[in-house]
Amino acid sequence: MYYTKPKEECGVFGIKASSDCAESVYYGLFALQHRGQESCGIAVDNGSNIQSYKNMGLVHEVFTPDVLSLLSGKTAIGHVRYSTTGASLRENAQPLVTKYTGGVMAIAHNGNLTNGAQLRSSLEEQGMMFQTTIDSESIAYVIAKECRRHKDVEHAVLAAMRQIHGAYSLLVMIQGKLIALRDEFGFRPLVVGTLDDGYVVASETCALDAVGAKPLREVESGEMIVIDDDGLHSYRDNCSGKSHMCIFEYLYFARSDSVIAGKSIYEARREAGRLLARQSGTEADLVIGVPDSGIDAAIGYAEESGIPYGVGLIKNRYIGRTFIQPSQEMREHSVKLKLNVVADSVRGKRVVMIDDSIVRGTTCRRIVKMLKDAGAKEVHMRSSAPPFLYPCYFGTDIPSQDMLVSWNNTTEQVRRLIGADSLAFLDPDSLGEIITGSVSGYCDACFSANYPTAVPYRGEVRKR
Amino acid sequence: MYYTKPKEECGVFGIKASSDCAESVYYGLFALQHRGQESCGIAVDNGSNIQSYKNMGLVHEVFTPDVLSLLSGKTAIGHVRYSTTGASLRENAQPLVTKYTGGVMAIAHNGNLTNGAQLRSSLEEQGMMFQTTIDSESIAYVIAKECRRHKDVEHAVLAAMRQIHGAYSLLVMIQGKLIALRDEFGFRPLVVGTLDDGYVVASETCALDAVGAKPLREVESGEMIVIDDDGLHSYRDNCSGKSHMCIFEYLYFARSDSVIAGKSIYEARREAGRLLARQSGTEADLVIGVPDSGIDAAIGYAEESGIPYGVGLIKNRYIGRTFIQPSQEMREHSVKLKLNVVADSVRGKRVVMIDDSIVRGTTCRRIVKMLKDAGAKEVHMRSSAPPFLYPCYFGTDIPSQDMLVSWNNTTEQVRRLIGADSLAFLDPDSLGEIITGSVSGYCDACFSANYPTAVPYRGEVRKR
Amino acid sequence: MYYTKPKEECGVFGIKASSDCAESVYYGLFALQHRGQESCGIAVDNGSNIQSYKNMGLVHEVFTPDVLSLLSGKTAIGHVRYSTTGASLRENAQPLVTKYTGGVMAIAHNGNLTNGAQLRSSLEEQGMMFQTTIDSESIAYVIAKECRRHKDVEHAVLAAMRQIHGAYSLLVMIQGKLIALRDEFGFRPLVVGTLDDGYVVASETCALDAVGAKPLREVESGEMIVIDDDGLHSYRDNCSGKSHMCIFEYLYFARSDSVIAGKSIYEARREAGRLLARQSGTEADLVIGVPDSGIDAAIGYAEESGIPYGVGLIKNRYIGRTFIQPSQEMREHSVKLKLNVVADSVRGKRVVMIDDSIVRGTTCRRIVKMLKDAGAKEVHMRSSAPPFLYPCYFGTDIPSQDMLVSWNNTTEQVRRLIGADSLAFLDPDSLGEIITGSVSGYCDACFSANYPTAVPYRGEVRKR
Amino acid sequence: MYYTKPKEECGVFGIKASSDCAESVYYGLFALQHRGQESCGIAVDNGSNIQSYKNMGLVHEVFTPDVLSLLSGKTAIGHVRYSTTGASLRENAQPLVTKYTGGVMAIAHNGNLTNGAQLRSSLEEQGMMFQTTIDSESIAYVIAKECRRHKDVEHAVLAAMRQIHGAYSLLVMIQGKLIALRDEFGFRPLVVGTLDDGYVVASETCALDAVGAKPLREVESGEMIVIDDDGLHSYRDNCSGKSHMCIFEYLYFARSDSVIAGKSIYEARREAGRLLARQSGTEADLVIGVPDSGIDAAIGYAEESGIPYGVGLIKNRYIGRTFIQPSQEMREHSVKLKLNVVADSVRGKRVVMIDDSIVRGTTCRRIVKMLKDAGAKEVHMRSSAPPFLYPCYFGTDIPSQDMLVSWNNTTEQVRRLIGADSLAFLDPDSLGEIITGSVSGYCDACFSANYPTAVPYRGEVRKR
Repeated sequence: MYYTKPKEECGVFGIKASSDCAESVYYGLFALQHRGQESCGIAVDNGSNIQSYKNMGLVHEVFTPDVLSLLSGKTAIGHVRYSTTGASLRENAQPLVTKYTGGVMAIAHNGNLTNGAQLRSSLEEQGMMFQTTIDSESIAYVIAKECRRHKDVEHAVLAAMRQIHGAYSLLVMIQGKLIALRDEFGFRPLVVGTLDDGYVVASETCALDAVGAKPLREVESGEMIVIDDDGLHSYRDNCSGKSHMCIFEYLYFARSDSVIAGKSIYEARREAGRLLARQSGTEADLVIGVPDSGIDAAIGYAEESGIPYGVGLIKNRYIGRTFIQPSQEMREHSVKLKLNVVADSVRGKRVVMIDDSIVRGTTCRRIVKMLKDAGAKEVHMRSSAPPFLYPCYFGTDIPSQDMLVSWNNTTEQVRRLIGADSLAFLDPDSLGEIITGSVSGYCDACFSANYPTAVPYRGEVRKR
Repeated sequence: MYYTKPKEECGVFGIKASSDCAESVYYGLFALQHRGQESCGIAVDNGSNIQSYKNMGLVHEVFTPDVLSLLSGKTAIGHVRYSTTGASLRENAQPLVTKYTGGVMAIAHNGNLTNGAQLRSSLEEQGMMFQTTIDSESIAYVIAKECRRHKDVEHAVLAAMRQIHGAYSLLVMIQGKLIALRDEFGFRPLVVGTLDDGYVVASETCALDAVGAKPLREVESGEMIVIDDDGLHSYRDNCSGKSHMCIFEYLYFARSDSVIAGKSIYEARREAGRLLARQSGTEADLVIGVPDSGIDAAIGYAEESGIPYGVGLIKNRYIGRTFIQPSQEMREHSVKLKLNVVADSVRGKRVVMIDDSIVRGTTCRRIVKMLKDAGAKEVHMRSSAPPFLYPCYFGTDIPSQDMLVSWNNTTEQVRRLIGADSLAFLDPDSLGEIITGSVSGYCDACFSANYPTAVPYRGEVRKR
Repeated sequence: MYYTKPKEECGVFGIKASSDCAESVYYGLFALQHRGQESCGIAVDNGSNIQSYKNMGLVHEVFTPDVLSLLSGKTAIGHVRYSTTGASLRENAQPLVTKYTGGVMAIAHNGNLTNGAQLRSSLEEQGMMFQTTIDSESIAYVIAKECRRHKDVEHAVLAAMRQIHGAYSLLVMIQGKLIALRDEFGFRPLVVGTLDDGYVVASETCALDAVGAKPLREVESGEMIVIDDDGLHSYRDNCSGKSHMCIFEYLYFARSDSVIAGKSIYEARREAGRLLARQSGTEADLVIGVPDSGIDAAIGYAEESGIPYGVGLIKNRYIGRTFIQPSQEMREHSVKLKLNVVADSVRGKRVVMIDDSIVRGTTCRRIVKMLKDAGAKEVHMRSSAPPFLYPCYFGTDIPSQDMLVSWNNTTEQVRRLIGADSLAFLDPDSLGEIITGSVSGYCDACFSANYPTAVPYRGEVRKR
Repeated sequence: MYYTKPKEECGVFGIKASSDCAESVYYGLFALQHRGQESCGIAVDNGSNIQSYKNMGLVHEVFTPDVLSLLSGKTAIGHVRYSTTGASLRENAQPLVTKYTGGVMAIAHNGNLTNGAQLRSSLEEQGMMFQTTIDSESIAYVIAKECRRHKDVEHAVLAAMRQIHGAYSLLVMIQGKLIALRDEFGFRPLVVGTLDDGYVVASETCALDAVGAKPLREVESGEMIVIDDDGLHSYRDNCSGKSHMCIFEYLYFARSDSVIAGKSIYEARREAGRLLARQSGTEADLVIGVPDSGIDAAIGYAEESGIPYGVGLIKNRYIGRTFIQPSQEMREHSVKLKLNVVADSVRGKRVVMIDDSIVRGTTCRRIVKMLKDAGAKEVHMRSSAPPFLYPCYFGTDIPSQDMLVSWNNTTEQVRRLIGADSLAFLDPDSLGEIITGSVSGYCDACFSANYPTAVPYRGEVRKR
């Protein structure tokens, strides 16, 4: 059976407070916008019903003041969704609001189930019908089914948790309660914060900052947290003690000002830069980062190596969903549209250029060329992530192995392809060092093929 | 007579090529988007007529592929416009296309005329009617009038130039020609570039880069450049040899990757940082910049002072024209929406914070507080611009003197108001150093009241 | 003091039921769309708050399914607004929702106050600020003020009623109650209907039909009806026993399938046609009506005269708010855009053409010409309204006297101006006959200058 | 092979004049809006290129003044498209503009090819790729192919004509020429008109009236008319002398004020009403028509029978593409939303109700019930079309036979189903009488299964 699923790189935000909170969700999602620019949505529970509004677009495009003012309720969840080619369907926007015999629930999901396809087939065989292609709909069916079997919603959701496998940082709004779940592996981040009059749960602490909430703690692997009128209740029945946090959250996804499990993202990236400097130092005159996520590592590399840090590339911030891609004739200049070189900064210099990773290699090649055209004497590329070699089944959008330049080539071959004077990746064995003091374990399967759990299409993964 | 004019901080882009060029204008304006996010427009000359399309919004919002494809012509101009409160009228969007007895012309204007009000009154007395409140409409009337008096359009525009005073970097598309004018003082930048098959004129070189044009030279003060089918022709009848380039272009307006008259903006800002370090050094553990325009100076300050550079503040890039301003209840967190602190970066440190300028002081105060709340031991603020004391009549949007914190307070008072541990501004006498190798002179009237030419409401300006 | 007010030809709809009723308001407003195509809005009371949404456009344009689904509440009011040139402001859309010390209220108003300007001045002197230019805002202030003086909202509104003069058929939603008011003269229609689980109040019975409500009775002149959880309560403190229903409601405004005070609009118009046939019969071969409101009278004229009825003119139904008006070059054909002639129907015939009224005469002239160009041998125009001579202060949009063709000309002169072979108006003395069995009295001031109450700018009205 | 094609009930409009003509296309399409409300588009040839703009929506919604002003050219074609469920794709909007080796062409098509599927398969086998699901794309390919084989475009299009079978009234804009084609059977109308400075071709004469063009003559069956700078040229190589004009154009599609081949649509429908009165007269008090297309026949029936004509049903004109369909709860009132009864007109009467046809019978049943609920004593339904029994392959959207109430039931059974007191259809043998003086022959295959040419899926058609 072949089944193509949209990758679920997303951001979630939930709140329960003592007054209307749709505005807070708006600002929380705005702070999480880097996790998804395709679509967004908000669902609020007004005590008697759940209202929701969602659409394609950025938070400030989808929610006009008129619409935001219609959303009233003291419990709410929201979602921002990543744009992957082809799956850009309005129907797939979240939160997903569904009616079940006991009422109505809303779900916002970040992650990818590993048994999503089986779950869907099995539900379809039982006669269920699907309106979307997202896992959240299967999850809703399973929760609804368990609600019929259990007296209280808490035990229903706990039972549902045991049937869904893979990666999920999940918010469920049901019966006036805000429920936050994290899979037993802890793939995707999920953090709880406190307000004067309530609680917030979000993918990252930067969303807590945006609404004035104080970080309390991470939702643990396998934990279910229920926030109701009596406060916060933890259910640890499914807690595993495992920790397989996606290492790419530290290297790329999360915002620099966020903190995951006690570790500042900025510091983690700076540490990656320092490690790179130690592992693959080189003679050079200038260290630059590819904005945005290469900047922090570049600062670390500069510190450790003693080579001056500078700005070599400027990113145009005004690109939106509706940006017109350049025509064939304009294609050669297209890298300069989104990224331009500061020629006077790099001219005549030996430049160390740090990026967060290399996927297909095409963008790198164009950036190296642009730097050399601007007069850089040498370009030494360093990637703060190890080479991508394997697919991810837990929510990171990595192309198939055939598209990965590092799967098809040695590092020396990649260096030649991108035209750099030297190239080095972060040593995968040192990944642990960048998260010192944070989670106890991490997932690096995209670099190592060490999947912490069974993945759906194992046959796809070819190993070195 | 009281007459309120919208400030005309804008960006202009013009092109004459051998094939359809609306797409190039799109990308050129996209590169100039930082100069104006309120509205934008494109006018193309298709040989027999001028078509135009403009609206409120960002370039990628206003121009859908369907609309862009309707604009066809080998000569074109475009405009992005800054958002100042109150003057957000669709009618004021540019380019302005007007019919005159000899045909039709389009105008895109960056700057502010000093005799705009008189010109308008005088034209109204002659029976002219105005549809907009922008100077461009008066300019169009004057050009049209001169066209009736002169045989060729070149001499008509030269004659018109002598009647408009103040700041203008102006593009006129008329009779299939692309005409670029710069006022005799050279207040606003305007640069010419070459394509394989034509020419480009733009506010900044970053727009040339975006379309693959090579910078040729600046349009000189008082120069008129006419680009027609025979190539580029320079008219120096009104050339003055003066140079009063707005110093704030280097400090704030222009993009870091642009080059004005041979000077890299990035290098100019880095030099401002180095000067600040020499003029007002302090003991500290970390240098940070307020994004975006404080970053470059912070790097310079760090270099000169030897204090490590780091990231202390993260800017949310996803704010658009339709962003909902926080309600009263959310107001206290609102600075964190657009800017958040990297707490682990600043905690326990003595921080030097560089911003491009201080206007009202309110944003600074909130940033200083945010840094201290995050654990910064000391915050030493440095402004890469001298204190704002006087209004600008040449296109920079400076509030009235009563709103300027430095007009109303001493530096020590400002320091206390913003809660910093020390505060220093760039010495106005050293401004010349940051543009070494660029223009021969500059305008710093907003700091010094040394207006290079008569300004309309001199009585308004109170001097120390 | 000169004060230009937008005319308030509008439609209102209110409902109180036992389940969510926004959808019913949607269909009710849709049925009243002929009373206003400029803007529309809905406000719902969800028990704890009032939500509202309104915008420029038709009901089906403004309310998308997503937005409609956000409006939840068991009490609701809605409004459609007429498009008059110049006053097309989004701010003027209704219902108007305002906060007052006791809570929040929503108002939807049809009619024009005669003391609107004084009320506004007086409130402004008391320090009130206005966001709109509509009477509803003054009414809201007055109600709010009375709410502070009276224990119950019913007596507050009754007291407010005594301070607002002129024409109003008004819905107020306050404290979960739906309140319907009609001025003491009964200028504008307002009818109550019953649902299985509640009540509906609307401008016309066609809106009751649209939601399955059964007509109960008219709201009487000066009556206040309060619908709360206990049912319908009538307050007759301000009842006057007067009846000055706008006669033009029967002739033009109301929809043919509506019934006002027991009188079918269709039958009233058919009677007008029969009266015309008796008063000013002529030899002819065909009777046609100008769609839509001339059709019914034409059928009546044909019946009475024995001349065959036929279709002579076809109206294009697809004109909307955004229709582009023809340019100068196309102007001569413009009448044919909205209305075209059925040439084979009228060719070689003596035609009686019935329209609802003649205002400026320009449209009539073009229609007569179109009929003659198509081959009509004679065109005998009959107007089912008497000649318009005087302004209306009670909500009908009649141009100033100088624009009224009948004010400036005798009937014979008008006949010549419009190019008809004969012309007759309904005899004003027979207006009573068309509403036999309906209201006891009517207002015909626009024909007679017999204003039932003091009007604001009496000096304006010149009498014959 | 199964292949579902969207039905192509549409309207086309073309013009060649001596000045810009996009505005004329706008008004022409506006006059043809009744032929298609789903999408519309305009393509103009500006001498050097073809520009086009199209989108979902009504003419006045799609074309804003800004967009219309961008369309400049002296030759232009336009299209309005009918909304059939499921095929509502923006890609299918017309005109279709395609590049071919010799340049660019635009096509606007009304009708359905009978060899559309084979043509597409065969082109796909030759390697062609399709972006849409409409016949126009195949036609464009065939024309492009023939352009490579023939020196002049006229002979290329004539050759292409011989390869496309079925129903087409087609406009092609190519090499600055406006080409109008009509299939050899003459299924769909196409008429030429003259302007002072050019020519117009349109589906109906009402579109000619809208732009001030005078009807010249029909495009004949199999004729190709080429309008270029030298005037109008007729190519009769493929002329057949056949005439199989769709009889349903007279009964339903065309607008009452249009004239097809010398026959007024209004007069044809009135004649249908007279025939019905003669064929199936009944005792009654009132004759009413179901708006809009039943009105004319009702007037004819009343004339012939001597029973008075009146208005019994009012149609709401404000329904648009975005109208929200009533929910389950509101469903029972939904017929009243679009159509309401004039109760006082029908109460206590024996009513003859004329509609243009009966398809599924559901709407009729609801209307009969509504009339009886309003007090009609008897309802005698008459259909001005014979019973629908067979599918149409030439552009009329008739459901599959299983959905046709007359296929599944006798007339008596249908009568009982719809609840009428009597029911009669127009005798199919008398169809010729309604078009006396117009075309020499007509297609009535939907009533008779007498298809004038081979149809694609003959097996589908079950015969009585």
